[in-house]
Amino acid sequence: MIFQQQLRIPGPTPLPERVVRAMDRPLVDHRGPEFKAVMDEIVPGLKKVFGTESDMLLLTCSGTGGLESAVANLVSPGEAVIVALCGNFGERFVSLNKAYGAEVIALEAEWGRPVEPSDLAEVLRAHPEVKLVFLTHNETSTGLTNNLQQLARVVRESGDRVLVVDGVSSVGSMPAEMDAWGIDVLISGSQKGWMAPPGLAFMAVGPRAWEQQSQARSPRFYFDWAKLRDEIAKGATPYTPAVGVAFGVQEGLRMLFEEGLDQVYRRHRVIADACAAGLEAAGFELFAADGYRSATVTSALPPDGLDVSALRSLLRQKYGVVIAGGQGKMTGKMVRVGHLGAVSVGDLIQVLWAIEQALEELDIKPADGRTLAAAGESLAREATPALA
Amino acid sequence: MIFQQQLRIPGPTPLPERVVRAMDRPLVDHRGPEFKAVMDEIVPGLKKVFGTESDMLLLTCSGTGGLESAVANLVSPGEAVIVALCGNFGERFVSLNKAYGAEVIALEAEWGRPVEPSDLAEVLRAHPEVKLVFLTHNETSTGLTNNLQQLARVVRESGDRVLVVDGVSSVGSMPAEMDAWGIDVLISGSQKGWMAPPGLAFMAVGPRAWEQQSQARSPRFYFDWAKLRDEIAKGATPYTPAVGVAFGVQEGLRMLFEEGLDQVYRRHRVIADACAAGLEAAGFELFAADGYRSATVTSALPPDGLDVSALRSLLRQKYGVVIAGGQGKMTGKMVRVGHLGAVSVGDLIQVLWAIEQALEELDIKPADGRTLAAAGESLAREATPALA
Repeated sequence: MIFQQQLRIPGPTPLPERVVRAMDRPLVDHRGPEFKAVMDEIVPGLKKVFGTESDMLLLTCSGTGGLESAVANLVSPGEAVIVALCGNFGERFVSLNKAYGAEVIALEAEWGRPVEPSDLAEVLRAHPEVKLVFLTHNETSTGLTNNLQQLARVVRESGDRVLVVDGVSSVGSMPAEMDAWGIDVLISGSQKGWMAPPGLAFMAVGPRAWEQQSQARSPRFYFDWAKLRDEIAKGATPYTPAVGVAFGVQEGLRMLFEEGLDQVYRRHRVIADACAAGLEAAGFELFAADGYRSATVTSALPPDGLDVSALRSLLRQKYGVVIAGGQGKMTGKMVRVGHLGAVSVGDLIQVLWAIEQALEELDIKPADGRTLAAAGESLAREATPALA
Repeated sequence: MIFQQQLRIPGPTPLPERVVRAMDRPLVDHRGPEFKAVMDEIVPGLKKVFGTESDMLLLTCSGTGGLESAVANLVSPGEAVIVALCGNFGERFVSLNKAYGAEVIALEAEWGRPVEPSDLAEVLRAHPEVKLVFLTHNETSTGLTNNLQQLARVVRESGDRVLVVDGVSSVGSMPAEMDAWGIDVLISGSQKGWMAPPGLAFMAVGPRAWEQQSQARSPRFYFDWAKLRDEIAKGATPYTPAVGVAFGVQEGLRMLFEEGLDQVYRRHRVIADACAAGLEAAGFELFAADGYRSATVTSALPPDGLDVSALRSLLRQKYGVVIAGGQGKMTGKMVRVGHLGAVSVGDLIQVLWAIEQALEELDIKPADGRTLAAAGESLAREATPALA
């Protein structure tokens, strides 16, 4: 019997008790003053975290729905688009564009490697006529964070393009400055760093994107951004929103601001570094390239002889620790530890301890404490006064 | 200060305490055994209520998203479709089809009147080549329930068509027998009779619809039914679902089955009849045609001199009673009282009492008890042993 699971997948994330309590309120009329008051708080709050003064749109769907809304609003059938990808969610941008009849020019980096700004610059030079560029900020499937600021600069310098960024598992957990970095569309989802349950996608849409949107000719109705903008300006949404999730987002945002975004980002970074150090000491090989390791999810290849699914089952059943495996072509070949949103150093310590115990039980390595020692050294290097 | 709102719009509906408590559980891995256990209960449960052995699909979106998924999966650009409509949500089917480039043959009944089976038969005869027929079961905007069983029979007898039915505000609150009545696609949403918060749409899809789906050529990705079916067969969903809402649906279904579907339907009908009697006694003119009045929402035109928005504001601010106004072309001209999902006779009594008080305060009619007397007479005629 597991008393309390330690849910360490890269979303959905655990809910802080404050968020749970905030969601324990009766439903309200989604077109009435009570919901407008919620929207009046969360729309500006999200804009602040996204670093934008552009429009913030909320839609009831998963992060993938948010990504699709960008394609449905910006791409016309037969149009050429550039997708720079390095993992499963980048591939999703390719599939989405193909589903809408776009001609996809794919710049594909090896999984575990970032998209190189120079490669992107070259593709942009070779295709001066292409208006739309799709990028993944944090590639959840490989635990890699692209250098979005650099990549966005390359796009901005290449001419009048519309840059669409998947920030589903990054915004709110690491710096992502939409306006300052020159991003036109930035997308996230409630179940990631926002500490709320799944159900709402957030799309920040800037002026260049609106201009493109007004000309694009793909079918859209539920995903239509203009209808969303018009209703959100009145404090409502065109179709019934996930009201309860919005209550959760409201409280999650309050917690982010109380902690301070700089400290939130620092907490994620410190925990990610300790996670990487621990996994490496345990015999795993870190998958994402050095310098690009994600602050929200750590990916690693198992030590020789370790069956990933046996490890995950043991962790779940005996220790109540739930981690993710690989996605797409890495299914069954990788572990991914999610550490975003409501995550403390103590949570990570539980996970690493359980992994070390499990490795001994699976006859891979003795549980001699090296994993936690390495994590402790990493934490000590950070010299953070408070780590809870 | 309003201690507890009486939320009587036609969705979102209030949550029973049992549902609230059931949702108070930690989030789980949406691809793990805990969520599979939820799916293993709610998928068969939903199928039972829908009266179908076909596939049950769940998607994180509003009811409109569910309707759009039908268009995205079934309609090809340039294809002719028949939409039989009698209100705002029927018009939504028209807009959705047009957004996907369909040529819409609209059979439009006057608002407040049902779609007549003979009119539908005529349109079907005139267009033998048209494969797709879209119908609204319960037209939430006018408080009218079409005779779906008859209309479906007309479609079935007209040849090999695919019948798509918007059952968003009907299924779970009134009889809707998908297989027995010959419906190919039936759609509902979690925030209606299911007593859960908004966030999940349910689409039941039968064999004729699957055949059409395999040939249709509209862009689709998030809404793609085949991907949904394949993942749901494994107890998961292709993209992160609204996990918390699924917990709520699970408990709501248990409550429906414990009460017994026949009694659930009877409770809705009895309360709707009492609501209509009360509103009529209060001087309102019932909007939906006699014999077609919805069991889930009652629509009525105000007595002379009554400003609907003044009434709604007073009800909300002084009595904590939230009712809906008109939609589309009836905005500001109508009241709609929602009574679906978690609704008891006591709830309705509160609403009618508040309306009577408010009418006196607005100098329309004295609060002489006639509204509640009429509701009481209606309830007495039903001779229901227990009405709580």
